[in-house]
Amino acid sequence: MSELIKKLNWRYATKRMNGQAIPQEKLDNILEAIKLAPSSVGLQPYNVIVVEDKELKDKIFSEAAPRQLQIPDASHLLVFAAWEKLTSQHVDDFIQLIASTRNVSLESLAGYHSSINGGILSRSEEVNFDWAARQAYIALGHGLVAAATEEVDATPMEGFDAAKLDEILGLQEKGLRSVVILTLGYRDHEKDPLANAKKVRRAHEELFISI
Amino acid sequence: MSELIKKLNWRYATKRMNGQAIPQEKLDNILEAIKLAPSSVGLQPYNVIVVEDKELKDKIFSEAAPRQLQIPDASHLLVFAAWEKLTSQHVDDFIQLIASTRNVSLESLAGYHSSINGGILSRSEEVNFDWAARQAYIALGHGLVAAATEEVDATPMEGFDAAKLDEILGLQEKGLRSVVILTLGYRDHEKDPLANAKKVRRAHEELFISI
Repeated sequence: MSELIKKLNWRYATKRMNGQAIPQEKLDNILEAIKLAPSSVGLQPYNVIVVEDKELKDKIFSEAAPRQLQIPDASHLLVFAAWEKLTSQHVDDFIQLIASTRNVSLESLAGYHSSINGGILSRSEEVNFDWAARQAYIALGHGLVAAATEEVDATPMEGFDAAKLDEILGLQEKGLRSVVILTLGYRDHEKDPLANAKKVRRAHEELFISI
Repeated sequence: MSELIKKLNWRYATKRMNGQAIPQEKLDNILEAIKLAPSSVGLQPYNVIVVEDKELKDKIFSEAAPRQLQIPDASHLLVFAAWEKLTSQHVDDFIQLIASTRNVSLESLAGYHSSINGGILSRSEEVNFDWAARQAYIALGHGLVAAATEEVDATPMEGFDAAKLDEILGLQEKGLRSVVILTLGYRDHEKDPLANAKKVRRAHEELFISI
């Protein structure tokens, strides 16, 4: 068994955390793994809000996610928020980023630029929001694995009031809508009934179809 | 920089692969990481089709994904396919799996069972398909990171004809719809124009919003 698989077996959906802060270096590595997640065309059509403030975590818990007992005792809460609407400005900025990162001319990227405009940008807002949300879930997957390798507990959650959370964090003004949240912290062995529960996964042959 | 971040910087969206097969042990670890991905409620509402057969990869390339030059020279093609429709049988099977894995009674899971039925199962087919697709993207994220740690190149792709791919693989009969595909293999340094290109990612402060 590889070291990674050992770490992924160690991780579980922690239901109660113990309030301990995670070291900055571990947080940095988790965020960097999220930043390095690939996305369709490379657009990274989402932002990730990093909430550390205790009062704000408590407010989010009580007003937008009262069933998620992890939140008040998490070290950090990450909110993955997809771009509500993909704009030509987003695409222009992205093309500019490629040009500056790779030191190539905008002219040399003109074909790529117009193919993104003609493809992704021409779709409906709703299709693009769903697409953006899916890309955010790849980044979530990266964050989950990175947290496990850092031995930081991480619980992804969809059970929250997205509209309320967006309001608390002022996301609408930023053109964002929260799609999934992730607590980072440390498991509370005593309070969490699932801390010692066996991991439940469908058998290999139920999940994979080899052709 | 952690070992994981080094590996994630090494990975990139490989555009051309060299035909070399990946060792079984590496494939097993990548699939195991996918299997260990968390999902909403734990349902894993997707399957992953593992295509190794050369003729089938060629057929998929020519008929369903002609722009994806990686496919013919990939070692394996993984097709992430979400459940088209979530049924009460799915939920029953899942509850049974929890009971047998954790050696607890079905009665003790009755509350959880009915909360899933009342929540997820009561939603529209379309909402559940989109939800299932998102869960598959978490698993994709796991697979991507695991491939990087194994130094296996991996390219996620949405640019394919899903209906055609589903037809080739007989997915409709299985209640599945392909949502994203992933090639596994090894980069072709000479043929891939992006093999030495600098990675493009939005700056930390553009992606993350700290509150």
